[in-house]
Amino acid sequence: MRTVFWDEDTQELKMIDQRRLPGVLEVVAYQDYHQVAQAITAMVVRGAPAIGAAAGFGLALAARQSKATTTQELQADLEAASSALKAARPTAVNLTWALDRLMRISTSPDNSSVDEIRQAVLVEAQRIADEDVAINKRMAEHGATLIDDGDTIIHHCNTGALAAVDWGTALGVVRTAWEQGKRLHVLVDETRPRLQGARLTAWELGQYGIPYDLISDNMAGHFLRTGQAQKCFVGSDRTAANGDVANKIGTYMLALAAFDNKVPFYPVVPTSTIDLSLAHGGLIPIEERDPQEVLGLQFQGERVAPQEATARNIAFDVTPARLVTAIVTENGIVYPPFESNLRKAVEG
Amino acid sequence: MRTVFWDEDTQELKMIDQRRLPGVLEVVAYQDYHQVAQAITAMVVRGAPAIGAAAGFGLALAARQSKATTTQELQADLEAASSALKAARPTAVNLTWALDRLMRISTSPDNSSVDEIRQAVLVEAQRIADEDVAINKRMAEHGATLIDDGDTIIHHCNTGALAAVDWGTALGVVRTAWEQGKRLHVLVDETRPRLQGARLTAWELGQYGIPYDLISDNMAGHFLRTGQAQKCFVGSDRTAANGDVANKIGTYMLALAAFDNKVPFYPVVPTSTIDLSLAHGGLIPIEERDPQEVLGLQFQGERVAPQEATARNIAFDVTPARLVTAIVTENGIVYPPFESNLRKAVEG
Repeated sequence: MRTVFWDEDTQELKMIDQRRLPGVLEVVAYQDYHQVAQAITAMVVRGAPAIGAAAGFGLALAARQSKATTTQELQADLEAASSALKAARPTAVNLTWALDRLMRISTSPDNSSVDEIRQAVLVEAQRIADEDVAINKRMAEHGATLIDDGDTIIHHCNTGALAAVDWGTALGVVRTAWEQGKRLHVLVDETRPRLQGARLTAWELGQYGIPYDLISDNMAGHFLRTGQAQKCFVGSDRTAANGDVANKIGTYMLALAAFDNKVPFYPVVPTSTIDLSLAHGGLIPIEERDPQEVLGLQFQGERVAPQEATARNIAFDVTPARLVTAIVTENGIVYPPFESNLRKAVEG
Repeated sequence: MRTVFWDEDTQELKMIDQRRLPGVLEVVAYQDYHQVAQAITAMVVRGAPAIGAAAGFGLALAARQSKATTTQELQADLEAASSALKAARPTAVNLTWALDRLMRISTSPDNSSVDEIRQAVLVEAQRIADEDVAINKRMAEHGATLIDDGDTIIHHCNTGALAAVDWGTALGVVRTAWEQGKRLHVLVDETRPRLQGARLTAWELGQYGIPYDLISDNMAGHFLRTGQAQKCFVGSDRTAANGDVANKIGTYMLALAAFDNKVPFYPVVPTSTIDLSLAHGGLIPIEERDPQEVLGLQFQGERVAPQEATARNIAFDVTPARLVTAIVTENGIVYPPFESNLRKAVEG
């Protein structure tokens, strides 16, 4: 089952509710693009490629929901829907990338009626989803060449099948290396505050039979410094033209620890996630979320923080390109200088 | 109230049960040194200076518990108790430091009877506790000179009154600067897995009225990289002769992020925590604790990790001296070269 998919029978977008894993595997159906935007904000679906695909189907729903009778009216409705979906989360560029691609389809002269546009947007949304799986598989093949038999790999957040339409980015690389017969061990950053590592990556690795140990994010440095980890693989929510990588909060500190110990650090990044319009990572908008995600932690049934405590909740950080060994894309492994080589990779 | 104190009326060691904070402020009484050792292992009491003082009073209890009728028999009993107390936690050197100091008293020719030794051990344990408070105040005066009005300070773990007999080490510095009228804001690392920051430091700062925000440990890098923090202050469980600092897991990654952004990084370290017998941090024993401390995390009443998940739980890491700006001791602020200057500080 894909994380995000279009149900032909019911004509609905369906998604695994990732907030309920690993306890419950529940699939939720959507008929309304507003609800899709809310689901993206609430992290029912998360992971840069997955939210790109979800937004795409969200726009297909918007086209169906629209009561437009002219193509101009429909395009206005789609513009409004696209804006709402883009605003659902600011950091991952895949939302914008997928929606802009669909908007180009909607204004194509090939589609001259309201119904043709509705159909074309859905076909293209499906194409984005299908391509995502193929792209992940190609990234995984490239990335797996970087993994040696016997490696221990540190992994941050969740970048598996749940973070994409299927297969995954960084975790897809690990999965492909494992299926090639390489013996691996994964140290899974639990990934505070939303705990995508403890919730989702641990669950996925269990499904695949890949051996792992969960660690708190702040333990990675110790394993790197004591020679107990050979590679780091992470995803990205937006990578700037110079190779600065925005990714889940904590990635920068992991990259520093890898660099300090000469351990290779590899973001796995579909070219849809590379934003050549931004010269460097300082220009990437960084989402700040509800402090309750930090404050609400419980242990033995009791909230840990004092009731009156306040918190900050920064969702992403930027890892400067100087800490990045290479960036794995579907078009190959990109080494420095990133400025020129990333552009070549994006252009295919 | 002190975190660790001797109750003259009941002739018991009393300690705040730090596992129950911030919800419940409970004081537990001990009459048996075995229970004191268990309490140290279970982290009823934690923090390098606090466990040193607790072990001291534990040895005083052992002297009282002993049925020895000769000084030789008593010394054998004290040796056994000292070994048991030292084994309670391996990384903090304060256990060894306090117990060795008491064992020297117990074998001093000044004490010629069983009762004299019993009394002398208790007097010296009380002296260690009283000295600890005075030492913390001196460290705090030195350290506060490093803090400027308006600073935002990142703090890891808990190093406040709860981590010592009273006042605290790194948090004692912050507290003294605040009482001097400097306007401060503290970013409190929650400090996975035991969450001493979320539990204890947030609670202490609330008591003192010092403004703070809780963050997950992996957010510190973002605040440092975006110029939102001016200083880092941490404690230490053992500092080697070359200035390598063992401290709560996560300290190394924080130090890397501070160094990468030219933000000063200051361990606050009583000389009792400096182990000149170890040439470098690689020789410091690093405790690994029960994986349930990582796995048992809950959110909205449910365990987060899959039931079958496994975990590693490394309790401390070593920050290399090259990342340390200066070390605050009760005998002044020690700058590099640490090799020679730490020795001078220890010698007073």
